[in-house]
Amino acid sequence: MTTPAHQSEPRASRPATRPLGVAAIGYAFMGKAHSNAWRNVASFFDVPAFEQKVLVGRDATAVAEAAAKYGWAESATDWRTVITRDDIDIVDICAPGWMHAEIAIAALEAGKHVLVEKPLANTLAEAELMTAAAAKARARGVQSMIGFNYRRVPALALARELIAEGRLGTVRHVRAAYLQDWLADAQAPMTWRLRKETAGSGALGDIASHAIDQVLFLLGDQVTEVSGRLNTFVTQRPGSEGTEDVTVDDAAWATLSLTSGAIASVEVSRVATGRKNSLQIEVYGEKGSLLFDLENLNELGFLDATLPVREQGFRRILVNEPEHPYLAAWWPQGHIIGWEHTFTHQIRDFLTAINDGTQPTPSFEEGLNVQYVLNAVEESAANKSTLTIVRH
Amino acid sequence: MTTPAHQSEPRASRPATRPLGVAAIGYAFMGKAHSNAWRNVASFFDVPAFEQKVLVGRDATAVAEAAAKYGWAESATDWRTVITRDDIDIVDICAPGWMHAEIAIAALEAGKHVLVEKPLANTLAEAELMTAAAAKARARGVQSMIGFNYRRVPALALARELIAEGRLGTVRHVRAAYLQDWLADAQAPMTWRLRKETAGSGALGDIASHAIDQVLFLLGDQVTEVSGRLNTFVTQRPGSEGTEDVTVDDAAWATLSLTSGAIASVEVSRVATGRKNSLQIEVYGEKGSLLFDLENLNELGFLDATLPVREQGFRRILVNEPEHPYLAAWWPQGHIIGWEHTFTHQIRDFLTAINDGTQPTPSFEEGLNVQYVLNAVEESAANKSTLTIVRH
Amino acid sequence: MTTPAHQSEPRASRPATRPLGVAAIGYAFMGKAHSNAWRNVASFFDVPAFEQKVLVGRDATAVAEAAAKYGWAESATDWRTVITRDDIDIVDICAPGWMHAEIAIAALEAGKHVLVEKPLANTLAEAELMTAAAAKARARGVQSMIGFNYRRVPALALARELIAEGRLGTVRHVRAAYLQDWLADAQAPMTWRLRKETAGSGALGDIASHAIDQVLFLLGDQVTEVSGRLNTFVTQRPGSEGTEDVTVDDAAWATLSLTSGAIASVEVSRVATGRKNSLQIEVYGEKGSLLFDLENLNELGFLDATLPVREQGFRRILVNEPEHPYLAAWWPQGHIIGWEHTFTHQIRDFLTAINDGTQPTPSFEEGLNVQYVLNAVEESAANKSTLTIVRH
Amino acid sequence: MTTPAHQSEPRASRPATRPLGVAAIGYAFMGKAHSNAWRNVASFFDVPAFEQKVLVGRDATAVAEAAAKYGWAESATDWRTVITRDDIDIVDICAPGWMHAEIAIAALEAGKHVLVEKPLANTLAEAELMTAAAAKARARGVQSMIGFNYRRVPALALARELIAEGRLGTVRHVRAAYLQDWLADAQAPMTWRLRKETAGSGALGDIASHAIDQVLFLLGDQVTEVSGRLNTFVTQRPGSEGTEDVTVDDAAWATLSLTSGAIASVEVSRVATGRKNSLQIEVYGEKGSLLFDLENLNELGFLDATLPVREQGFRRILVNEPEHPYLAAWWPQGHIIGWEHTFTHQIRDFLTAINDGTQPTPSFEEGLNVQYVLNAVEESAANKSTLTIVRH
Repeated sequence: MTTPAHQSEPRASRPATRPLGVAAIGYAFMGKAHSNAWRNVASFFDVPAFEQKVLVGRDATAVAEAAAKYGWAESATDWRTVITRDDIDIVDICAPGWMHAEIAIAALEAGKHVLVEKPLANTLAEAELMTAAAAKARARGVQSMIGFNYRRVPALALARELIAEGRLGTVRHVRAAYLQDWLADAQAPMTWRLRKETAGSGALGDIASHAIDQVLFLLGDQVTEVSGRLNTFVTQRPGSEGTEDVTVDDAAWATLSLTSGAIASVEVSRVATGRKNSLQIEVYGEKGSLLFDLENLNELGFLDATLPVREQGFRRILVNEPEHPYLAAWWPQGHIIGWEHTFTHQIRDFLTAINDGTQPTPSFEEGLNVQYVLNAVEESAANKSTLTIVRH
Repeated sequence: MTTPAHQSEPRASRPATRPLGVAAIGYAFMGKAHSNAWRNVASFFDVPAFEQKVLVGRDATAVAEAAAKYGWAESATDWRTVITRDDIDIVDICAPGWMHAEIAIAALEAGKHVLVEKPLANTLAEAELMTAAAAKARARGVQSMIGFNYRRVPALALARELIAEGRLGTVRHVRAAYLQDWLADAQAPMTWRLRKETAGSGALGDIASHAIDQVLFLLGDQVTEVSGRLNTFVTQRPGSEGTEDVTVDDAAWATLSLTSGAIASVEVSRVATGRKNSLQIEVYGEKGSLLFDLENLNELGFLDATLPVREQGFRRILVNEPEHPYLAAWWPQGHIIGWEHTFTHQIRDFLTAINDGTQPTPSFEEGLNVQYVLNAVEESAANKSTLTIVRH
Repeated sequence: MTTPAHQSEPRASRPATRPLGVAAIGYAFMGKAHSNAWRNVASFFDVPAFEQKVLVGRDATAVAEAAAKYGWAESATDWRTVITRDDIDIVDICAPGWMHAEIAIAALEAGKHVLVEKPLANTLAEAELMTAAAAKARARGVQSMIGFNYRRVPALALARELIAEGRLGTVRHVRAAYLQDWLADAQAPMTWRLRKETAGSGALGDIASHAIDQVLFLLGDQVTEVSGRLNTFVTQRPGSEGTEDVTVDDAAWATLSLTSGAIASVEVSRVATGRKNSLQIEVYGEKGSLLFDLENLNELGFLDATLPVREQGFRRILVNEPEHPYLAAWWPQGHIIGWEHTFTHQIRDFLTAINDGTQPTPSFEEGLNVQYVLNAVEESAANKSTLTIVRH
Repeated sequence: MTTPAHQSEPRASRPATRPLGVAAIGYAFMGKAHSNAWRNVASFFDVPAFEQKVLVGRDATAVAEAAAKYGWAESATDWRTVITRDDIDIVDICAPGWMHAEIAIAALEAGKHVLVEKPLANTLAEAELMTAAAAKARARGVQSMIGFNYRRVPALALARELIAEGRLGTVRHVRAAYLQDWLADAQAPMTWRLRKETAGSGALGDIASHAIDQVLFLLGDQVTEVSGRLNTFVTQRPGSEGTEDVTVDDAAWATLSLTSGAIASVEVSRVATGRKNSLQIEVYGEKGSLLFDLENLNELGFLDATLPVREQGFRRILVNEPEHPYLAAWWPQGHIIGWEHTFTHQIRDFLTAINDGTQPTPSFEEGLNVQYVLNAVEESAANKSTLTIVRH
């Protein structure tokens, strides 16, 4: 592990006398969401000093405009140059999945702390290389993190706490679904997201990844066996040059066996008409249960089965009290927060870990772990058989 | 009180050797609902033996048909004859409000136990006479009851228990609303319910009476001061002989001061588009709160503010456990019951009280009490001023 | 088909001059529910005249008491004698599953119309024999029906109508779950329901059968391929003579491919803490979606995606209007009905079909169909592979 | 009124060559919320260029820290100096209510556009002076606005649109409630908010003001008659020097008659245990109804009574589509926004109006109007009689 090469590689920047310099790569949906988090995190949380130095994108005009709009001091078009700048300590990768590996590995090798949006990569091979690079970098004090932002929904962080405290007792089963409907219209046009070569997979990689990460996060558990199924309900869509074949799934189903003996069902769809962004999670334990829906992310349902039967029932906890994770920083009770602050919390935790010299979570290993599960779902679906996961 | 006249009046029938004989008067909506309760109560509850002897109505053919359909052994058209029959022990009055006083007083004087549908009467004077008759009859062991059936919704009975046990601490305020929409259509035709001379009042007497009874029932309290308002949004409607004036309210609002210091708001409407039969009750106490909606009558919302803030929230208690009032008699947990069984429970409690020789609740006094409040709401609305209730 | 034997078998009783005579076999949970339906159906619906003749059970005292309580004229202990009585035209079988085949076949051969509670039988072989017997009897005008009572929930009947009218367009996927929690407590004692030899299967046969029947009913479709999984979370339970092994599943998962190309996921559990009787159904189509939960059975969620996006949303339809299936017979709008009336509606439809000389639905064939699917789920779970259904 | 002094008063700053300079006064709860809006508005909306110049507060250290945290270039302690600075064009007043009049009038006279948090002022006299000053300033192109931020909840803006389009037909009645519970604990300590001399009123001015403004906003109507009631449930609280009397209301009730004939009920409480920030609004019209709850502010309930009865029901519209007010600027569908963005939208509309040279809404006149209603509620409560509003 400690090859000579490593010795010459830069250690993590720990600027004693200046704020941490941040570069973000990508300014589309995720770039906008991450930028919003960087712009606001210090207004609410005590975080180490940092500066929004540079936003990187391919179109010089567009990225300059985005940089001005989203609070970045400057813009650039060549990520390679940016990630080696001395004034940059953190690289936040919001570029498309197929670019993750190259940028992340280069940035880690350059001694920059890296935050990368999920999925870790489009292929397992890339994800494994990234994870190896992250492990090496960590030894030099260079931190890395994958952006499963829903771990920072206060209601889900509270759910995690309750489960860890044993409030549910032994968890028996989990129902996780992520339902959207932006492809419900059979005439919705072809996009890169619907081609296997650019997107890797469809609903599976895009949203099942979130659902599976939540199962692992909430239960603190690992998957041992997988049974999966994929389907493409709308197999052809209008493209710019005529009808094109859709080559990714628009819905997926899986059951996951966990080390603890628990079983999770996962169901995701982009054609669930009327469901806009509905990540639904239900956890059933011996002593209690939890319910969650991302469309109503300020609420957690909790049933405490240790109370007298006469007064048991699912409680709607409005997760907006100073007693709840992240909430003391925000507004008085009952003043709900929006989806975007899952990213604000993520940046807060990322910066805090960097400052403390600790590994932020979820790590690339955890991201890779989710990729293994996704991969097993695909294989199981292709084989029409249940599959044991051997790697990780 | 013990005038010679009393001595000659019959004491309550207490048949030792035969089932109680029941007569019901009226076979419209309420007659159908009461009949259903009589037909089913013994299949679920341990009640004293009784027989559905006779159903009384004005139209001989129609009442005969109804009797056959609803489980009555025979039918009759003259209530005066029926209430003096030796084989009749109980008279259940489902006739229109303007007939209540005459029948109830005659039946009580004949020594029959009486159940009368709410409202007690259309006028305060009649209600007072009935209450006096009931008091006299009670001294002879003849029982009487007014049919505020919603006291027998299991969820509301549970609410009453929780409040009585102190689970809410001091109750500060109550929000009671009864919202319907069957008059929302401005072209809905004129009926007897919309004429003051036949109906007494509109939404006020018909549905505010239920809301007010619930406030009194749940809190076990009395009204001291009233502020009221009435409105008729649709002042004319098509009648059989042209446009007619609507002479009763179709919505009413009131605030009630209670002896305990609590305040209740009451709001009722027959033009609340989309609300079908929504008696909504919210009780806010120092230590907890309760929520209820009749359209979802198997559920009670309960917030226990003595729990840690982190896990507080309104619970949806599905009131369908054997531990809940009346439910042990029905189906396994989660198999919900319908609106009509509020009447089944009412008959069960009525029969049990008769068997035990105790006063069933709510008594005519309690019914009169509600009439006083309704009357004060009307006076306050007419005077445009807040009113102190002096009677009761 | 028309063998001499057939000629000697009795044709269906069509009593011209007397009411239909009904015998019910079994007086436990289902016997109580069916009896309730028989006792009440004629009070609400126009049905052919019938009489609750006899209730059959093994314990003479207990069945006599039940008969009196539930409205039957007499009781008996020998079903064989009863089903050949001349005054009996209908046999309603509420006995345990292992008795279904013998009774049903004998009754059909005796020319009695038969209603049998689900599941059709505990084994596929028995179910096939029953179906054959039903087909033969039908040729002689003797009708038969399996009691999937949830087809008679008004909200689900409305759902069926909306789908059949094309309001959802092409249905893509269905999520069906049936969640209960009566086995969540690991100390809940052993019962016959938890032994394979007496119960056949666990949650699968008991409640997945309802979920699967709903998928078939709502979509009017057939299953072509199945992937299944079973699990027993609590593998041992206290028995009367020490710890015993639980030999049936307490949870099951399946995906079903349908002829139309739709896919249904099915998930059932008896350890879903806090869920009491929650049959949840979600149907996602190109033009709209439907939501249902049996714990709130008077409501149907409906999203109409053909409306302008600005005003789309899931509607909570309170299925309590005269315009809704079965509801014109009951109470005014907003006065909700209970679970037990799914059976009342079932009897109504059964009697109507008998009167009309038509096949009531669901037929034994439909019941057998569900058994095939359940069987395939078990096989798929055992094989850890997806299975094509070849029979039916 | 038109003194020579006016002629010399500055016209509105319309900087041609530089961004609008903004000063904010106050950095507590409202200052934090307004600052957040200023910091983010340009990242999402096309607004005229502006700069967060200076944050003003009394404590030099604290305000300097707040300025750095909330994105202001500098801080200051003397608002009088700030509002006359040439580089300041807009003054955003987040100071306590008793300071509003003095600052707002001075700023308007200095030619600065003014945004003032609600309530307009603590006294009617001050509010009238402010409104007069605003009218005079407007004539010189100097704009002013009162911050009823809930007009910018997308769901309520959508509600306004639907009502204005006639989708509800004639509105009959409105139920508006604002329920909180931060004073439910009888031991919660005394604060300036509970003394009449500092707070003006209690729940009435603080939250009924929002409820009443919504009624006027949604219906576009005026109040003609008021009936009110106030109550203080906890009359004494622990202060720093022993028990103190609470001299404001902690709950209030009112009915409002509107010019159109509609009637609104208003109920507000700070002791509604379990309700955190629940501004609930229900609007019942002849053709439809609307439901809203601020604790779930991304949703609007809508019932369209012109649809066939069979499919009517309250829809849960997730107000997160590009088709909805303000939403095109934010995230993809289903990614909900938080409470704070009501202020972001407010700043957006304020800046747009300034840029266009038009009067932003709600104007000071509208704020004064709400004050008249609040005042009438207090008078009616004191008089125990219904009151006609004559002013406005």
